[in-house]
Amino acid sequence: MATIFSRIIAGEIPSYKVAEDHYCYAFLDINPLAEGHTLVVPKVETDYLFDLDDEHYMHLMAFARKVAKAQKAVLPCLRIGVAVLGLEVPHAHIHLVPLQSEADLDFRKEKKQLTPEQFRAIAERIAGAFAKL
Amino acid sequence: MATIFSRIIAGEIPSYKVAEDHYCYAFLDINPLAEGHTLVVPKVETDYLFDLDDEHYMHLMAFARKVAKAQKAVLPCLRIGVAVLGLEVPHAHIHLVPLQSEADLDFRKEKKQLTPEQFRAIAERIAGAFAKL
Repeated sequence: MATIFSRIIAGEIPSYKVAEDHYCYAFLDINPLAEGHTLVVPKVETDYLFDLDDEHYMHLMAFARKVAKAQKAVLPCLRIGVAVLGLEVPHAHIHLVPLQSEADLDFRKEKKQLTPEQFRAIAERIAGAFAKL
Repeated sequence: MATIFSRIIAGEIPSYKVAEDHYCYAFLDINPLAEGHTLVVPKVETDYLFDLDDEHYMHLMAFARKVAKAQKAVLPCLRIGVAVLGLEVPHAHIHLVPLQSEADLDFRKEKKQLTPEQFRAIAERIAGAFAKL
């Protein structure tokens, strides 16, 4: 059965897309730790990040950096934090979280509540910055 | 002034070294979230991970994966989690944390207390696995 991320990539489940290329897809986390919290996933279904083959892994890492640069260009933050946990969805994914402090990268804290309009506006701003990189 | 990580790399401050190459250095975090929690740093002093140039960034990411594979080979864990926060030390560093659950990647939780002998033994096991990859 396809993972939830494969269904998002295929458009079967809607998402606030931030960026996409032939190997990767980036979209807003709908339970964000901060505004603009983005998930970056490889299109290939691999459970564990470090099991990706060299080509996919290195491409994903380069893609994630480009997404992080786009986030930092348009979101109020000191920098973009990175987290990979991945025990809940069996499809590798990188969290890119705009940080104002180290405490912002805390998955136990209450998630931000945003409206669809807010999500859409944030995704469009990051996508616009990504397109210019 | 050299960062604490540059002083560790130079050997001015002792560390439990796990792996090293011409660009990167990996050593045990002495305030670990889990046994075998490792920090991977570029030898070049760059504050923010995503400001590294392409060559250093891609090399660091490949090196970090190799360290993670070595950790997973010798430590009891489901997988290796990744975190980059970096607001406290102005020298980019990647946390590689052996996870039994998602809750293990929580920087607010109490750190493990290990003896120097325990740190040394863990570092040697990871280094041994790294050398075989």
